[in-house]
Amino acid sequence: MKVLITGGAGFLGQRLARELLARGAVKDEHGKPQAITELVLLDVMRGSDFGDSRVRTEVGDIAERNVLESVIDDRTAAIFHLAAIVSGQAEADFDLGMRINLDASRLLLETCRQRGHAPRVVFTSSVAVYGGDLPEVVQNDTALNPQSSYGAQKAIAELLLNDYTRRGFVDGRVLRLPTISVRPGKPNAAASSFASGIIREPLNGETAVCPVAGTTRVWLLSPRKAIESLIAGLELDAVALGNQRVLNLPGISVSVDEMVAALREVAGEDTTRRIVWAPDARVEKIVGSWPGQWDSSRAERLGLSGDRSFADVIRSYIADEGIQIR
Amino acid sequence: MKVLITGGAGFLGQRLARELLARGAVKDEHGKPQAITELVLLDVMRGSDFGDSRVRTEVGDIAERNVLESVIDDRTAAIFHLAAIVSGQAEADFDLGMRINLDASRLLLETCRQRGHAPRVVFTSSVAVYGGDLPEVVQNDTALNPQSSYGAQKAIAELLLNDYTRRGFVDGRVLRLPTISVRPGKPNAAASSFASGIIREPLNGETAVCPVAGTTRVWLLSPRKAIESLIAGLELDAVALGNQRVLNLPGISVSVDEMVAALREVAGEDTTRRIVWAPDARVEKIVGSWPGQWDSSRAERLGLSGDRSFADVIRSYIADEGIQIR
Repeated sequence: MKVLITGGAGFLGQRLARELLARGAVKDEHGKPQAITELVLLDVMRGSDFGDSRVRTEVGDIAERNVLESVIDDRTAAIFHLAAIVSGQAEADFDLGMRINLDASRLLLETCRQRGHAPRVVFTSSVAVYGGDLPEVVQNDTALNPQSSYGAQKAIAELLLNDYTRRGFVDGRVLRLPTISVRPGKPNAAASSFASGIIREPLNGETAVCPVAGTTRVWLLSPRKAIESLIAGLELDAVALGNQRVLNLPGISVSVDEMVAALREVAGEDTTRRIVWAPDARVEKIVGSWPGQWDSSRAERLGLSGDRSFADVIRSYIADEGIQIR
Repeated sequence: MKVLITGGAGFLGQRLARELLARGAVKDEHGKPQAITELVLLDVMRGSDFGDSRVRTEVGDIAERNVLESVIDDRTAAIFHLAAIVSGQAEADFDLGMRINLDASRLLLETCRQRGHAPRVVFTSSVAVYGGDLPEVVQNDTALNPQSSYGAQKAIAELLLNDYTRRGFVDGRVLRLPTISVRPGKPNAAASSFASGIIREPLNGETAVCPVAGTTRVWLLSPRKAIESLIAGLELDAVALGNQRVLNLPGISVSVDEMVAALREVAGEDTTRRIVWAPDARVEKIVGSWPGQWDSSRAERLGLSGDRSFADVIRSYIADEGIQIR
């Protein structure tokens, strides 16, 4: 089986690739495990090939037709479309966000349609599709009302994937991801960057700036569970999904204060003192428009699961990244 | 004030033009009436110019950039975007629907953005953005779940207009129209075509085929009220609308049997005998996915109104079109 990951050099893309290579197989559309014979990682920069002969790294602009045509052929049985312009950057550069988050997603679906074999396609979406006056717990039938261009672009990609699936052009699945925390590495342009930074930087002995109030409620998922969900999402039975291909993934609803309390529990008071509180209206406006919790019972019935507690998430991060607490 | 109507040669476009010319003025963004000095009617065919020197008819493909650039300049203060590929045709020709319902709508918004003067733009949307398991009365916060490509394309255009408005590129308004009945003229490729045909053809002494069951519930608006709503929608105060620019217009919820009963009340039993019942699964599937009623209290609070009864709608149609009952 040939598998493609767009955004394959990114944090989630590389983690997903590593996990797929370790598993060696994924279920096909009939639920039968099939060996992964080729894993293509497409991105604007070259990712690691993990020294594995099954991996082919490709560098290219995903909004260009010939790039997509070079990585999707009629043997491409599974596609994870992770490439995206993050929320803060899509708000700062409208055209870039439209080009990657909307046009490239559509071009990917269109390339699959032209190939004619209706491959399974997993899109990632986001809490940012919601906004405005929200119920305390967002339901599956709560209307989308994005308050950022990123959220609007993701909502549009969801609609496209649903319609391409309904028409039989692809066998699509959209996983709406909670905010991923704790991401390793450096801060990025996502409005949610702080949700990893306020844990990661203090654990590294560095100062972190928290741009939102401690009472802000966020809906989180660990990288481990995100990767597990992406593969489970691919393997879900198409019949069980029916014509509604969007799933709100399970998460943990915590306030930023509770995140800090979990950090204190795991790493001590000295660590949490490295957080500097400096509210930023631009970030607060975007993050404040997102739901702090959603009903994920449909995903749970389909066998997907989230994390147990945010303190556990921090412990997993420390173990996975080999962090020495200072 | 310069006004543009896309789809200006169509039924609603021509009615709207006639009404705007008769009124002579519309309110500007400050609520002050301003004389209409130029009314541009763009369509793929030439519409009537009503022998009025204020009217400029333009023939062109709305999905082409230079066509939109030729009809939108920085004096274009109001745009009614009515051009669309109807539901049945968008389902039969996916690429054409995407090109007109999605790409042209985006290009129109983009052309406005480039002009830089944030004109008021009225989009029309549809019951078809809803679908799947719906509550008996669709609420403002009920999630969209289109079950046709037309519905998906309209839902995407709504998201685009909302985001272009939020960013200040346009001052947009989306009116979700109930099914328009009674339309004069001939049947078209819309799945809802029967909702006019089963009234219009029998009144003309002709046979009409009804492709859906009599129990099918539809949500209707008369052409008179649709035109009134389009102008009212343009004139709505931007501040009162806030960042949610989509309005579910008031309508009448009737079953097809009740429509026929209203026709009997107005025109007699002989007329209704001209309806032939011939269920068509393709049409039933599309129409059956639409809501039979939605909550329109937000539009009503903003001063918009629907019809009183479907019998009245038929009487208005007979009066407007000068029909002699046979």
